[in-house]
Amino acid sequence: MQAKEDVFLRSARTETGRFIGTEDLLKELAVRQADPRYKVEAVSWDRLEGWKFDQATGNLVHGSGRFFSIEGIRVSTNFGAVPCWTQPIIVQSEIGILGFLAKRFEGVLHLLVQAKMEPGNLNMVQLSPTVQATRSNYTQAHRGLKTKYLEYFLDHSRARVLVDQLQSEQGARFLRKRNRNMVVETSEEVPVHEGFHWVTLGQIHALIRQDNVVNMDARSVLSTIPLAGPGQQAGGAVEAGSRASPAVLGKGVAAGGALRTHDEIISWFTELKTRYELEVERIPLKDVGDWARDDRRIFRKDGKYFSVIGVSVEAGDREVPRWTQPMVQPQHEGVIGFLTKRIDGTRHFLVHAKLEPGNLDVLELAPTVQCITGSYKAAKPEDLPAFLHDILDAPPDRVRYAAFQSEEGGRFYREQNRNMVVEAGEDFPAAVPPDFAWMTPAQMNEFIKYNNYFNVEARSLIAAVGLPEEE
Amino acid sequence: MQAKEDVFLRSARTETGRFIGTEDLLKELAVRQADPRYKVEAVSWDRLEGWKFDQATGNLVHGSGRFFSIEGIRVSTNFGAVPCWTQPIIVQSEIGILGFLAKRFEGVLHLLVQAKMEPGNLNMVQLSPTVQATRSNYTQAHRGLKTKYLEYFLDHSRARVLVDQLQSEQGARFLRKRNRNMVVETSEEVPVHEGFHWVTLGQIHALIRQDNVVNMDARSVLSTIPLAGPGQQAGGAVEAGSRASPAVLGKGVAAGGALRTHDEIISWFTELKTRYELEVERIPLKDVGDWARDDRRIFRKDGKYFSVIGVSVEAGDREVPRWTQPMVQPQHEGVIGFLTKRIDGTRHFLVHAKLEPGNLDVLELAPTVQCITGSYKAAKPEDLPAFLHDILDAPPDRVRYAAFQSEEGGRFYREQNRNMVVEAGEDFPAAVPPDFAWMTPAQMNEFIKYNNYFNVEARSLIAAVGLPEEE
Repeated sequence: MQAKEDVFLRSARTETGRFIGTEDLLKELAVRQADPRYKVEAVSWDRLEGWKFDQATGNLVHGSGRFFSIEGIRVSTNFGAVPCWTQPIIVQSEIGILGFLAKRFEGVLHLLVQAKMEPGNLNMVQLSPTVQATRSNYTQAHRGLKTKYLEYFLDHSRARVLVDQLQSEQGARFLRKRNRNMVVETSEEVPVHEGFHWVTLGQIHALIRQDNVVNMDARSVLSTIPLAGPGQQAGGAVEAGSRASPAVLGKGVAAGGALRTHDEIISWFTELKTRYELEVERIPLKDVGDWARDDRRIFRKDGKYFSVIGVSVEAGDREVPRWTQPMVQPQHEGVIGFLTKRIDGTRHFLVHAKLEPGNLDVLELAPTVQCITGSYKAAKPEDLPAFLHDILDAPPDRVRYAAFQSEEGGRFYREQNRNMVVEAGEDFPAAVPPDFAWMTPAQMNEFIKYNNYFNVEARSLIAAVGLPEEE
Repeated sequence: MQAKEDVFLRSARTETGRFIGTEDLLKELAVRQADPRYKVEAVSWDRLEGWKFDQATGNLVHGSGRFFSIEGIRVSTNFGAVPCWTQPIIVQSEIGILGFLAKRFEGVLHLLVQAKMEPGNLNMVQLSPTVQATRSNYTQAHRGLKTKYLEYFLDHSRARVLVDQLQSEQGARFLRKRNRNMVVETSEEVPVHEGFHWVTLGQIHALIRQDNVVNMDARSVLSTIPLAGPGQQAGGAVEAGSRASPAVLGKGVAAGGALRTHDEIISWFTELKTRYELEVERIPLKDVGDWARDDRRIFRKDGKYFSVIGVSVEAGDREVPRWTQPMVQPQHEGVIGFLTKRIDGTRHFLVHAKLEPGNLDVLELAPTVQCITGSYKAAKPEDLPAFLHDILDAPPDRVRYAAFQSEEGGRFYREQNRNMVVEAGEDFPAAVPPDFAWMTPAQMNEFIKYNNYFNVEARSLIAAVGLPEEE
């Protein structure tokens, strides 16, 4: 009802920032990407400082017991083709903050982005949220400088909270990792430090259409901002009304044009969580079968999936100017994609309930296709994920979004995946396999709020398609 | 908007069933409770059939590897006064179904209840949902008879789904246990088997005000039925609208008269989940310190909390007429209670974010006071939970609900807790400690839908206060 007044929506439509143009920001990024002070080099294990392989377990740990560790898990499940396996996984139980500081200028909300160097980034420097801080960061475990702007996120008297949600990270690589995704709005005068810029949501949405410019943490936070257009707004309100009214509970036709009601989606997800079992046992890294370690890598003997490597980093302007750390290096470039379709006039996205070993709660809602751990190019046809061809072989006029995006540059070494949103063909059936469901953008916005519903791959795409169509 | 037509609400106000009067149902229950065929006897471990203590771990397990087991956990947390402990816990990873079959008679929804014998029940027989089936039950692991009415819950062509949610059970006793809570409505002719009765929600709400008549599984399912009165309905719709509209996101004043917006509650819960850490490691039962085992009990050496015992059961009319099994026996009677208060004219309940070791996700929303594991009567004043006196010492005219209710009779041996809802005094402050929050009934209804928000103790009380006041 107040959509016209909506500050998010207005700022999402404002593609001209008050402080820096989008082209100028890209130029500045290019200069920083070429900064000769930034150096990242893969090194052998003996050159990692502070890190060691625990004698008893073989786990790769930091001497302080903080940051993160590489350990092993044994997985049993009835989901998918492989019932049982072991693998290395990143264990990082502390919850960090990924946060955008926001402020209105002439009524338009601007977010403070940072052009940030991270060792794993494709292009070395990408745009990050204002604050990207592990708990170790902000409790100064690494004895670096204070995290800039953190005070706005910790002290609610200095900025009001617009978004504050727990969101999961890659369930194939992290064991139950989550971060706190925040947007806080201040009315204080804010000093703009070197490398930081105020940009509108509209500018960010233009930048997210470029390859490897907006980093994963930023995309994750952006996905939590519900950009309700007039159409969605009405849909949302009616749909919300249907949820408040048990009279329509369970009826076959959902309000707001959605194919399924909110309660039907909960029931669908409940049934799948009952059907699929996931047992994950933490084991010593040395007991992980099929994997080996040499002097510079932990790798799967058949070359599949990913390796763990050590890197040495120089980054003159970061809190800590030089350090070494382990990183995960993928073996293949992957693809994640949503199929989208208007069904009876309402925009829907095809969501996949996907089990990954690091999930907190068995299943999370994933994109239609998420194929980042194995090589889909090398797979046998019968092993390919459902709908892969609908994504990859779509004619250009049905591709709504396509860009390469990097995974988190603090843990993943030069990992990029093809992100796509593809309009399904006219003849694409509304009826889909049991693990899939069509959801409207308003429904996706709603489920995102509750932790551990949408996985990070889905959120990365949702961030890119956040702006409702003018249709 | 359609509240007047709402079948749930209408049936909740219909205290006269079509098939059996509430008094007659209580009389029948009394007859069954006195059935001489029902016998439950505590026995020594050597008389348990099919159960054994695993040699390596000391865990109490069934020879088939099914049903459940008693194992150990080591808990570390920064929540509460005790940072580290070990304890026995019930491990039951399979997800069962707790379900009410519903059907309209002359437009009024009736639920099919069963007068069911369970070994742990106070009074032996209580009213249960139509179906109460572990997966072992319905996959016939115990070679008993087929679970009656189960087909309506598994085959959606025979009954439409009104409610279908995953809900947690006692986090102090179970390790991440959940059941599927369902209500399905059929229009078929349904045979009414011995011990089953069609009753209205109004009848159930009258029965739930009695001590130990409506069992825990029934109360859990009943809590998922949103009984929106006209006032709440309007509040729900406005509140839902506020969620769809980011314009009001984060504003200090919530729509629908709620003290906090939905997003503010999510932020509050996010912050607490970040602040509190819970690490739970599964350990062999034999390594659980401070506990011992004799020939008929596993018990804490200081006599606190609970014991595990073995029972021998005779129950002529159950699927399996006789069996033996372990059960958990509490050492003390506990109390759970909600404080409630009208704030600026809107009904609110005081919710406590509580950490329990079996929680899937660190914290769940609990009643204002939940004191069932230790003896509050014996505790030192400074160890008493917050607000206990506001509940226990309230003058009678402020007690909105008080009844003894049993915990689940299939696992807990004669455990009853005092359930209370108490109107806070006029001078009770709206400002509360950081782990507490005021929520409206509409907000509680909404959060219940998403799994692992409200714990079973809170849901038990919510079931009892489900019917909105006429005010």
